[in-house]
Amino acid sequence: MAGTVKIFDTTLRDGTQGEGVSLSVEDKLKIAQKLDALGVSYIEGGWPGSNNKDIEFFMRVKELKLSHAKITAFGSTRRKETLAENDPNLNRILEVGVQAAAIFGKSWDFQVHTAIQTTLEENLAMIYDSVRFLKQNGLEVIYDAEHFFDGYKSNPEYALATIKKAEEAGADWIALCDTNGGTLPHEISAIVTKVTSSISCPIGIHAHNDCELGVANSLAAVMAGARQVQGTINGYGERCGNANLVSVIPNLQLKLKYDVISAEQLASLSTVARYVSEIANMHMPVNQPYVGSAAFAHKGGIHVSAILRDSSTYEHIKPELVGNKQRVLVSELAGQSNLVFKTQELGLDFDTNNQQTKQLIEQIKEMEHQGYQFEGADATLELLIRDAYGKLEEVFTLDSFKIMVAKSADQPVLSEAIVKVNVHGKTIYNAAEGNGPVNALDNALRKCLVEYYPDINNMHLSDYKVRVLDEKDTTAAKVRVLIESTDFNSTWSTVGVSENIIEASWHALVDSIRYALLGMTRVADKPEESRERLGLVNH
Amino acid sequence: MAGTVKIFDTTLRDGTQGEGVSLSVEDKLKIAQKLDALGVSYIEGGWPGSNNKDIEFFMRVKELKLSHAKITAFGSTRRKETLAENDPNLNRILEVGVQAAAIFGKSWDFQVHTAIQTTLEENLAMIYDSVRFLKQNGLEVIYDAEHFFDGYKSNPEYALATIKKAEEAGADWIALCDTNGGTLPHEISAIVTKVTSSISCPIGIHAHNDCELGVANSLAAVMAGARQVQGTINGYGERCGNANLVSVIPNLQLKLKYDVISAEQLASLSTVARYVSEIANMHMPVNQPYVGSAAFAHKGGIHVSAILRDSSTYEHIKPELVGNKQRVLVSELAGQSNLVFKTQELGLDFDTNNQQTKQLIEQIKEMEHQGYQFEGADATLELLIRDAYGKLEEVFTLDSFKIMVAKSADQPVLSEAIVKVNVHGKTIYNAAEGNGPVNALDNALRKCLVEYYPDINNMHLSDYKVRVLDEKDTTAAKVRVLIESTDFNSTWSTVGVSENIIEASWHALVDSIRYALLGMTRVADKPEESRERLGLVNH
Repeated sequence: MAGTVKIFDTTLRDGTQGEGVSLSVEDKLKIAQKLDALGVSYIEGGWPGSNNKDIEFFMRVKELKLSHAKITAFGSTRRKETLAENDPNLNRILEVGVQAAAIFGKSWDFQVHTAIQTTLEENLAMIYDSVRFLKQNGLEVIYDAEHFFDGYKSNPEYALATIKKAEEAGADWIALCDTNGGTLPHEISAIVTKVTSSISCPIGIHAHNDCELGVANSLAAVMAGARQVQGTINGYGERCGNANLVSVIPNLQLKLKYDVISAEQLASLSTVARYVSEIANMHMPVNQPYVGSAAFAHKGGIHVSAILRDSSTYEHIKPELVGNKQRVLVSELAGQSNLVFKTQELGLDFDTNNQQTKQLIEQIKEMEHQGYQFEGADATLELLIRDAYGKLEEVFTLDSFKIMVAKSADQPVLSEAIVKVNVHGKTIYNAAEGNGPVNALDNALRKCLVEYYPDINNMHLSDYKVRVLDEKDTTAAKVRVLIESTDFNSTWSTVGVSENIIEASWHALVDSIRYALLGMTRVADKPEESRERLGLVNH
Repeated sequence: MAGTVKIFDTTLRDGTQGEGVSLSVEDKLKIAQKLDALGVSYIEGGWPGSNNKDIEFFMRVKELKLSHAKITAFGSTRRKETLAENDPNLNRILEVGVQAAAIFGKSWDFQVHTAIQTTLEENLAMIYDSVRFLKQNGLEVIYDAEHFFDGYKSNPEYALATIKKAEEAGADWIALCDTNGGTLPHEISAIVTKVTSSISCPIGIHAHNDCELGVANSLAAVMAGARQVQGTINGYGERCGNANLVSVIPNLQLKLKYDVISAEQLASLSTVARYVSEIANMHMPVNQPYVGSAAFAHKGGIHVSAILRDSSTYEHIKPELVGNKQRVLVSELAGQSNLVFKTQELGLDFDTNNQQTKQLIEQIKEMEHQGYQFEGADATLELLIRDAYGKLEEVFTLDSFKIMVAKSADQPVLSEAIVKVNVHGKTIYNAAEGNGPVNALDNALRKCLVEYYPDINNMHLSDYKVRVLDEKDTTAAKVRVLIESTDFNSTWSTVGVSENIIEASWHALVDSIRYALLGMTRVADKPEESRERLGLVNH
């Protein structure tokens, strides 16, 4: 082991500064539990001096009885020319009853003059007084040296003087912040090396991703002696985000052999990353390092045939270590080896001489020729394979649907759908409105199925993409619709192709629901019971 | 200046290996022009030995007369135990008539045994023969040393032997590939330093982003002596993607002071990144470093007030250097400079104190806030400007439309539209079928207008793209529809946004037709004549 590195998570504080990220107190409490289970050492929950929502979080998080992580409050050094004991910000930190505080102060002379407009001496006193006040009140104190690297580049003596003041006042950690995210790894490396030789207080790193170097900068700091990494899940944060802990942690642990979290905790990384993205209502990119659904996905035929021989030929780690899995994307570029892999994954016996297999290959070729593409539509492919091997129960069949869309002058568009389906021998007829024709269709179909499959309410469509295939002849050309669906545990994608966007959407929608229902309990045998449970019975 | 670094773009080849990335030949040609204008040195267009679409690209790209970039074909070393001159892959490269070829071969002994299953000696011969064959045929040759870093870690002597063979055969460049993306910057740095002291051929770096270190690894290689960086726009590529050139270029040029592209070209970076994401129909993250719309956006109150004093307090570079802009608060700030440019282009007098101008800016801000994006929709922007300056004649107004889509069991979907519009005071009511709801709407609208504007038959929709804006609430979320239209002379793009895909399509469709009609002769004064000309008169 190369040593121990502590993780300081600021998803709930700095993460919420990201555009589009907004978390309720409930959301924050849920995420705090996941972070604790993941094994982070510090959870920075908010800035009690800044808003009441954060105060409520600190009050309620105590009830959760976290097993390991220290709940940390954020704040700034005292205001200029005041006493620390009279500073409302610092007192608010004491009032919320946390174990640790992270307070930021200025380390860049330029910022002292420009942003807080005071003298360099007063700034040093602000740092000293604030850290000492919190230490005297029994807290563990992390001093966040804001703009440390820019400060060091402009005036190294003064930058060092600020953190020496924090050390003198008893700070437990000094976190060096690359606040603007503009510093490069070799600079981080050189400056952290200087700092660790100048002070004995343990050092942390707080990096941002403005140069797409947030992870690299965190690693460079650790290799130069830092022992705490601050960052956020999925790299959420202001501007281009904070250092992404979801990449930092496996890099430190698997590649650099630091002791960070346990192997079991590491294996929950993909789940935690997806969970936080769901709660934060942020789309998780398929290509996110380590945990994205494409992170271990293989498309090229050459790669796939090599992977079948030995997965380390094209994978830098075993995906299971971070709770992810290998996937083979079936595309026309790839050969038959992709399909072999996929079938084996489903536990089916793939034999190219088998009649079912031959038909399946013909069917997939024909569908690809029509414009289907399965690389982004694993669930549709799985349904096709299961159908071919006769492993799939027919969930419902379509009798008919009708969609009406109407608009008058400046009025908004009205969309309605009527769906008639057969579910286990019963004809069900239902109608719904929607924000568009596909939404209306989705709503009407769900109304038909929910009596039999109440869990259908736990899934929703999370992405919808349309692509025109033959661009020469557009609104009359073939379109391919890709639908991504999500429930709390997983994400799956389905595809439909047709000259008609509604028909293509229908195919993708039906596959999405069929796939979801594979894992759901049917209450078809006792529909009345289910209707009662759902409050649908009006007799 | 720290020296010159050449950019080798592989968006059109490795980029298309990314999940969800699929480019038509037309798309590739459009992107090639943008890449050339951006100043990249090499454009890797595809693998001619692998598919016919790539061959078509290489044939058609010659007509574009690019100013600077060398079109490069990708391929592999010859097959084992054959002659290079008989190798179909290598011959295909010659046939497509490119200036440069990038051929990959094995540098990792494990891969030689496992993936291609031959001897280490035969692999060296495969490298030598292939490079020499292409050099003898007059091409510039980049040798891509696949898995070089993994290979070097496992067997440094053999890894070096492979690239020495390529050098001996006359390779112009040797690109060291971190194919699996698992190497860390300090390893890249150490290994590239060893390589540059062992061979004299110029070195390139080909990094992947599996550890979220693609950019850092590219920089580390350059600092250790590499002079070519391979990567893709927005980091598209297999698994977690390739090194993102959109971050690599400004890091090299603005931070490390290498000579990469001109300042003017750098200022087009944001536009190029957005353009490519539009063409590839990939969502561009708002927090993408340097070019994302949130990259220089400030949310925190403290930051904003400091920024107002001096923007360098919270910005690591001036956003204009990469064609991006500062954003404060929630305001979407339509690029006023773009607007100045656009208005001047239309011969209008842009004066920010003018009442019309102020209203126009407000209107554009409001539309951007709703999800409009004018980056890829010049025609809609032009119509807005002309409307604001009162230069636009009202062509027609909508009274109402109705769309019906019906499907029964296995029958194809039927789509019909009824449109009622007012054209120059006359109410026209018409209906049409179509291959989908939008096509039916398009057909019905054209039937209403063709009597007055017979030339409308010369234009057609050439592309149709749909993007969901709020991906978490999908078929009920806002959608943005981009329509590209074409006549014999030009191509124009329009945009519509709505919660309803039909309404969004309607807006884009109407703008497309309004724009087309700007240049058409109306025969409204003599409708009978026009009807006769078109054979519509049945009296």
